Amino acid sequence: MFSVEVRDRIMIAHSLPDPFFGPAQNMHGATFVVDVAFFREKLTRHNVVVDIGAALSVLNATLKPLAYQNLDALPQFKGVLTTTEFLCKYIFDAIAKAAAKGALGEDGTQLSKIRVTVTETDLARASYEGPVA
Amino acid sequence: MFSVEVRDRIMIAHSLPDPFFGPAQNMHGATFVVDVAFFREKLTRHNVVVDIGAALSVLNATLKPLAYQNLDALPQFKGVLTTTEFLCKYIFDAIAKAAAKGALGEDGTQLSKIRVTVTETDLARASYEGPVA
Amino acid sequence: MFSVEVRDRIMIAHSLPDPFFGPAQNMHGATFVVDVAFFREKLTRHNVVVDIGAALSVLNATLKPLAYQNLDALPQFKGVLTTTEFLCKYIFDAIAKAAAKGALGEDGTQLSKIRVTVTETDLARASYEGPVA
Amino acid sequence: MFSVEVRDRIMIAHSLPDPFFGPAQNMHGATFVVDVAFFREKLTRHNVVVDIGAALSVLNATLKPLAYQNLDALPQFKGVLTTTEFLCKYIFDAIAKAAAKGALGEDGTQLSKIRVTVTETDLARASYEGPVA
Amino acid sequence: MFSVEVRDRIMIAHSLPDPFFGPAQNMHGATFVVDVAFFREKLTRHNVVVDIGAALSVLNATLKPLAYQNLDALPQFKGVLTTTEFLCKYIFDAIAKAAAKGALGEDGTQLSKIRVTVTETDLARASYEGPVA
Amino acid sequence: MFSVEVRDRIMIAHSLPDPFFGPAQNMHGATFVVDVAFFREKLTRHNVVVDIGAALSVLNATLKPLAYQNLDALPQFKGVLTTTEFLCKYIFDAIAKAAAKGALGEDGTQLSKIRVTVTETDLARASYEGPVA
Repeated sequence: MFSVEVRDRIMIAHSLPDPFFGPAQNMHGATFVVDVAFFREKLTRHNVVVDIGAALSVLNATLKPLAYQNLDALPQFKGVLTTTEFLCKYIFDAIAKAAAKGALGEDGTQLSKIRVTVTETDLARASYEGPVA
Repeated sequence: MFSVEVRDRIMIAHSLPDPFFGPAQNMHGATFVVDVAFFREKLTRHNVVVDIGAALSVLNATLKPLAYQNLDALPQFKGVLTTTEFLCKYIFDAIAKAAAKGALGEDGTQLSKIRVTVTETDLARASYEGPVA
Repeated sequence: MFSVEVRDRIMIAHSLPDPFFGPAQNMHGATFVVDVAFFREKLTRHNVVVDIGAALSVLNATLKPLAYQNLDALPQFKGVLTTTEFLCKYIFDAIAKAAAKGALGEDGTQLSKIRVTVTETDLARASYEGPVA
Repeated sequence: MFSVEVRDRIMIAHSLPDPFFGPAQNMHGATFVVDVAFFREKLTRHNVVVDIGAALSVLNATLKPLAYQNLDALPQFKGVLTTTEFLCKYIFDAIAKAAAKGALGEDGTQLSKIRVTVTETDLARASYEGPVA
Repeated sequence: MFSVEVRDRIMIAHSLPDPFFGPAQNMHGATFVVDVAFFREKLTRHNVVVDIGAALSVLNATLKPLAYQNLDALPQFKGVLTTTEFLCKYIFDAIAKAAAKGALGEDGTQLSKIRVTVTETDLARASYEGPVA
Repeated sequence: MFSVEVRDRIMIAHSLPDPFFGPAQNMHGATFVVDVAFFREKLTRHNVVVDIGAALSVLNATLKPLAYQNLDALPQFKGVLTTTEFLCKYIFDAIAKAAAKGALGEDGTQLSKIRVTVTETDLARASYEGPVA
């Protein structure tokens, strides 16, 4: 199995309004460093998984609507606990959809899986990995 | 599959008394940076794998009895080659047991797997990954 | 010149309400990884600059009032542009004051300088370095 | 499943002569930081996956013929697009062959899989992971 | 003294045609991760050293003519040993000139010094630091 | 001012037998990742500060007598508190002496300063920087 993994980042504010989260119930924020890995069983005729430049562009376009935002104020997150784990899956879904639509080139429509890793501090990170149809 | 991974560290002394280990047969030591990843198929109702704060606490409590110790002098390691790989499994067992007992909250009792990675230098690390009952 | 440098981190929300900051005028947030270096010309009789454990404690105590906070809502930052550079100096002042009061032990009262580095993303960081009286 | 992962690096020149690669069609180069992970289900009688020193030696010997080379000028790469993904597999094949021949000691002949990760910049890396017979 | 430091990267080919450089006399290449730190004694009225976005843009524009190039083929490097140290100074000069011309905004014209650090592998890096007029 | 900085590492055991050090009074150990920076005002005629390969060799030769050792058992450290800070200076002295003797080539005899940084964990490091005669 081959993979290519690319990195981008966003700075956001949010709160986690449930007693479960202790001090993180407050409005606070995070720098999320986002790594997205694309997997495929065989390389394309260009000997790649996907073009790294295209992968970086798709990741950047996916994160842009979240950059410098207060997630609590975005309609798609109304009533949602926007944990790091949740955001891994949210980014996964957006990237998988973009790939299916051809945003990574035709190669990007034949991936076997995608993994999104979001690092929130030097001590903690989360990930979501799943197949792509 | 979702994961959350947290980090802590210990500084220990030990020796590896078998000719196989060459100079590491001597009493020497290591800083072990320990990353523990918790995996589950679906998020809890709080949209987490486990609470990151609880995960950091359980890891810290697991490592504490080893911190600033000479592993050769600890009864549980008598006659054991305490390689980095062995310690990955030792920490895995302790964390899996703590999780099963509820130390991570009730969410921690429904994990699918755990991975322990121990980095011993900038050039080498080991890991153990296994299912949790 | 000797130094000892220790690390901690906070997750905060804030906005930078001036057109100069473009999209960062929005309420957003950051993970600030904070490194504080303590400098002295000669080591103490214990062969240290300051005790690393004490340095980590003082840094943790300094950052705690900011952790999981919206800086815009804290009285000490009213009307202040809480840039990364500004926060370097704010943390520097708090640490220098704690050191002068003996929080690092008596050794901490004879430092020559302190440097605070705040990393906001994998691509950007700021620092403030100055003498301590 | 246990793993041990070791690191080395090479600096090479090459070109990717296909319009797919845009500016990377030019003669350019890269520092490739190479991490190789060896996996096995059970530890050997020395409580290791493979000896870390032996793993570092095999990796170094594998990379040496590529170090400070223009890949375009090497006979084994004639007409080949030497992408980062391709090189992951090339290094994988060489290491798997060396392991099968006993270069990692007899333990190295009973591995279950190997993963090669090649980091080309702070923002991008590729990997190949496969079973070893 | 305050600083702000930003990061970008280039992938280049070159050779170092002097026996002093041993195997690096060959055509080879490198990924250069470039960190540029801007220093000033006092913050601007926006509480910054320079705008981080502007700093990233100036660095990107400075590196662009070198990206994916064979340095041996560029007229400005004819007969020059393009060592990592030399490139630190070359980038320093270009950034200092851009800053003086106002590319960082008017704040960038009052810097006290600039430091360029170029990391060539996980084991080696070079830097040049100097005052700006 | 130019610099070149290279990295190596050692794994050692030691104890810090003074109540000041709390739990570190025990026999324990550390992985010390050692970065040595060489500084000079002007580059040599080869456009370098020192040859990176020579710098790596000198660092390796300097660290070798300490690698896999119990520092408490080495005669040169009898009665000495071998703190991270102390070791920075010890390594500095050894490297400065080697440079003066020509181990870095003749270029290494005209350095202006050397800085040794020893990282003991992901959260703490020490350094010593001084002029070389």
